[in-house]
Amino acid sequence: MIHRLTIQYDGTEFHGWQTQGGLRTVQGELTRALSLIEGRGVTVHGAGRTDAGVHAEAQVASVDLSRALTPERLRAAVNANLERDVRVSDVQTAPEDFHARFSARGKTYCYRVFNEQFTSPFWSRYAHAESRRLDLERMRAAASLFVGEHDWTAFSAAQTDVGSRLRTVTHLEIAGRQSRRGRGHLLEIWIGADGFLRYMVRSIVGALLAAGRGEMQMETIARAIETGERALAAATAPAHGLTLVEVHY
Amino acid sequence: MIHRLTIQYDGTEFHGWQTQGGLRTVQGELTRALSLIEGRGVTVHGAGRTDAGVHAEAQVASVDLSRALTPERLRAAVNANLERDVRVSDVQTAPEDFHARFSARGKTYCYRVFNEQFTSPFWSRYAHAESRRLDLERMRAAASLFVGEHDWTAFSAAQTDVGSRLRTVTHLEIAGRQSRRGRGHLLEIWIGADGFLRYMVRSIVGALLAAGRGEMQMETIARAIETGERALAAATAPAHGLTLVEVHY
Repeated sequence: MIHRLTIQYDGTEFHGWQTQGGLRTVQGELTRALSLIEGRGVTVHGAGRTDAGVHAEAQVASVDLSRALTPERLRAAVNANLERDVRVSDVQTAPEDFHARFSARGKTYCYRVFNEQFTSPFWSRYAHAESRRLDLERMRAAASLFVGEHDWTAFSAAQTDVGSRLRTVTHLEIAGRQSRRGRGHLLEIWIGADGFLRYMVRSIVGALLAAGRGEMQMETIARAIETGERALAAATAPAHGLTLVEVHY
Repeated sequence: MIHRLTIQYDGTEFHGWQTQGGLRTVQGELTRALSLIEGRGVTVHGAGRTDAGVHAEAQVASVDLSRALTPERLRAAVNANLERDVRVSDVQTAPEDFHARFSARGKTYCYRVFNEQFTSPFWSRYAHAESRRLDLERMRAAASLFVGEHDWTAFSAAQTDVGSRLRTVTHLEIAGRQSRRGRGHLLEIWIGADGFLRYMVRSIVGALLAAGRGEMQMETIARAIETGERALAAATAPAHGLTLVEVHY
């Protein structure tokens, strides 16, 4: 029976999602916990491979189990075998053809920036600290350039095992708010797409931050998107500011 | 010149506010950092002595310094000498008679409860996990009993070095909301008073939680307040759910 798991994790102490021999990864921990319950090795499919340091509020995984457990009991059993920085928040029985990655139609990420002259004890693990002034209007103008279907060559890793680099960014919004945890100003960059290439979100955020600091012109961003020249792109934003918020099916 | 500092800290790795020989405390760390800047030992007065594990979003401290530094520079200098779980978010020059503790007219605390069948990677340091169902209406009914001026003997530590145990709880509100960090339901218990005795907030919260679980009757709470009998009170709620949110002057 196929089960669909919703998972949240603090990525700080993980070497990312994907199993890598010897390193602590989220997929590795889940595989271990689920294999213990099943009594044999199982394969856990995740919706997306988050990088080291990236968090998830609702990653989705699918797994085929023969043991008959109610969703409630399965959730409790898995959580009992995990450390407290990763939790299964929901389990559902899924159709036989459900696959966390191939069934996904899109994802939403949130990139958080703590924008103050001081850093925050409550956000230092979850938001990138930027003490320089960020011009929100310039950032929003830059954001509008990214929305739509583009070839993301300039804004993704130079890996070669990927087919088309065409993806559609469906929304890209920047919200400023006072933090509810401690004092300080927080920027949240919400970005949704039908799919993301490796480093794509952090590369886009890097350009938005450079635009906000006045270090990158709109024309340069437009040209990077158009030509695919990586040399035109800005520095990739650090991993710990990024959170996978939702997977759309 | 008297300076007023606003301080936020994650209490997890501290043995509370107050300096204790050899142990890492917030007052100890601030005293060390400010004494380095001043070039001699200084005395740091805090608005309240938070216990081990309790957090602060805006603790207030006062300190008398002879070195002439702008508030901006003083903040940067102190923060440069602190680890990242404690930060000075604001510095202001204060009147000569300002004293963080004696000038305070009241405080507001927030106690957070993560109320789900699973725990949260994002809240495990900052909220008490309660998996049992909590009846919000019963909790609110119980909360109304605490508001007003009372003798808090049954709801405070049995220490003897305190004068009057009369304090006025000015507001006590319970709000339920979906967490913005990860999935899950969060209860926030906001409590304000003109002053708090040791363990008073956590003892009141303990009673509210017991009422919410249906384990404590309204009459018992009313009688505990009236008679001051500690035996009638519920278990004190754990420290890590508690945050000092504001000091009123």
